[in-house]
Amino acid sequence: MEQDQIYMSRALQLAAQAVGRTSPNPLVGCVIVNNGRIVGEGYHQKAGTPHAEVHALCAADTNAQGATAYVTLEPCSHFGKTPPCADALIEAGIKRVVVAMQDPNPLVGGRGISRLRDAGIQVDVGLKEDEARSLNKGFLKAIQAELPFVLYKSALTLDGKIATESGDSKWITNEVSRAYVHQLRNQFDVIMVGSETVNHDNPALNCRMSEGRDPIRLIVDGELKIPHNADVFTSSCSAPCIIATTEAAPLEQYAFFQGLDNVEVWKYNTSRYVPYEDLFRDIVKRGWNSILLEGGGKLAGSLLQAQLIDEIEFIYAPKLIGGKGPSPLTGLELPLMSHAFPLEFLETDLSTGDLRVRAKVKYTS
Amino acid sequence: MEQDQIYMSRALQLAAQAVGRTSPNPLVGCVIVNNGRIVGEGYHQKAGTPHAEVHALCAADTNAQGATAYVTLEPCSHFGKTPPCADALIEAGIKRVVVAMQDPNPLVGGRGISRLRDAGIQVDVGLKEDEARSLNKGFLKAIQAELPFVLYKSALTLDGKIATESGDSKWITNEVSRAYVHQLRNQFDVIMVGSETVNHDNPALNCRMSEGRDPIRLIVDGELKIPHNADVFTSSCSAPCIIATTEAAPLEQYAFFQGLDNVEVWKYNTSRYVPYEDLFRDIVKRGWNSILLEGGGKLAGSLLQAQLIDEIEFIYAPKLIGGKGPSPLTGLELPLMSHAFPLEFLETDLSTGDLRVRAKVKYTS
Repeated sequence: MEQDQIYMSRALQLAAQAVGRTSPNPLVGCVIVNNGRIVGEGYHQKAGTPHAEVHALCAADTNAQGATAYVTLEPCSHFGKTPPCADALIEAGIKRVVVAMQDPNPLVGGRGISRLRDAGIQVDVGLKEDEARSLNKGFLKAIQAELPFVLYKSALTLDGKIATESGDSKWITNEVSRAYVHQLRNQFDVIMVGSETVNHDNPALNCRMSEGRDPIRLIVDGELKIPHNADVFTSSCSAPCIIATTEAAPLEQYAFFQGLDNVEVWKYNTSRYVPYEDLFRDIVKRGWNSILLEGGGKLAGSLLQAQLIDEIEFIYAPKLIGGKGPSPLTGLELPLMSHAFPLEFLETDLSTGDLRVRAKVKYTS
Repeated sequence: MEQDQIYMSRALQLAAQAVGRTSPNPLVGCVIVNNGRIVGEGYHQKAGTPHAEVHALCAADTNAQGATAYVTLEPCSHFGKTPPCADALIEAGIKRVVVAMQDPNPLVGGRGISRLRDAGIQVDVGLKEDEARSLNKGFLKAIQAELPFVLYKSALTLDGKIATESGDSKWITNEVSRAYVHQLRNQFDVIMVGSETVNHDNPALNCRMSEGRDPIRLIVDGELKIPHNADVFTSSCSAPCIIATTEAAPLEQYAFFQGLDNVEVWKYNTSRYVPYEDLFRDIVKRGWNSILLEGGGKLAGSLLQAQLIDEIEFIYAPKLIGGKGPSPLTGLELPLMSHAFPLEFLETDLSTGDLRVRAKVKYTS
């Protein structure tokens, strides 16, 4: 029904308001409708706080009696930090529940839906499921693979360069695109760069937008050579900074960075190269579901080779620079074009004046 | 009026049917409408044959009396290879003429319009002028600058590579895009490559589509080092092949290529580098208005530096190859990103499964 579509869209819109704030939990939105009127709305705002359904039921109060609830994810049936939402919906007298997608969490797995049905509630599952899945890419990847959802973002000229031959890259894209990158940072749990990016570009890696929240910063530096006074350590940032390194890190460097406020050094038992999959599993164990990879090209190449990048977002500026400057992927050496990593286009957008292209990596083996 | 729009669109559609066939003349379409009914249509098919108006008037016959004529370009007022179209419209009793754009040719320059108005005909100018100009980019550039309209076409991976590190490039884009390139070849008077592309890719440079017509092939080879048996000389092709070279060409090579059927060698009085602007002026003098540049990167870089490229069309395949393979522009060495050549996006298209991007170069000085 058309009305169902509208209310579920609203629930998805509500859910999206907390993007970047709910990990390790999913984004969830809920709308309660009685007699063609929205009587309650809510969304999950932060792990440890009430679920979307509870917010919406509170707002609906006695109007929940006989109403329909639209929820972007199957209501939970287990006692976690909060009591089960399925029970709350039953107790409030909800008559019908429309669910966008079943919960992939093995702790729930359809049991919320059964519980509702056992209580005589009509449950319809699958409305706008694609949107619901898309909204929770990080949560789904973490639950299913115990790995984070990784987006590799790069800014380049139309001829594929991320800098000039002499290394200048300020700026490639326009101001609107650069502001957009801060929006992206606001949506991801973790922002990741390699040591070369820290050495060369010296980024602060915070989120400079109003009401933005800083992501966890993750620096990969197998030999721990980054400078003590890099902007990432001196800029104002509310989130901790993780440095992933190896046994190759000099002890005095290790001690220095360990001693910094707001910095954690994760040392892996390898020589020189950080084991990316182990690192990513540790990220998920900490409750962080999504990583925005901002470079550089060598790190991105290694992660692609390890099949750890899920999507790319390349922002092409309408300009040509030529020359022998670097490309967004320098770490791969594939001899034949048929060895290329295939992508699936998800979105292209010219509205900023730059060309933004989002695509999904289709690993073949 | 909405009706005017519809008939002018039809006239533009007719004009476009002869794309790649009319140089040095423009593409022109004409529709004659009497009492809300199309009574005659026509388009200019080839230099030296009747103009669009004549075809349409012939078809309309006595129905032209009191009718409105829609023409994509101002009717001519001079005796060229055919008598003036303005006179033909007057004699046929046309009452109103709608013209998309004034003729930029100094031999006409508004005089066709005056002639019609002097004969008491209502003339409206400027309907769908942008489309009309876009259709005749080659003709306009040739008339105004005595230089051809040049489009640089390249196929690349999303990370900006036109080949792998070891030089493999077969294939980057999909079959639909590769067929599209033959459509492009069918639309341009001349197709141009550098000697490195001949040496490396050995393209036939013909137009392999049904009812396609082969473009003139232009090879730039300052030192005349291309092999005698390159496919461009041995493949079936109805159009001549021009080799542009310099005093640096060895005499025996020069004599060999001069002796080939269907081949012309244009030798410029320079050492090693062909003077591109002189070459392009000679192209226009031969009556060829448009060039499709198909590579390589070094030649494209030199032409961009010389401000001789008007537009680019890059076709990005949804794949990532990484490594140190070549980019579409290797001939430039600009130290700062602020020195990049700015572009204006004209069109993006995903319908082939690859991402086609067309943009105009905005030279700043």
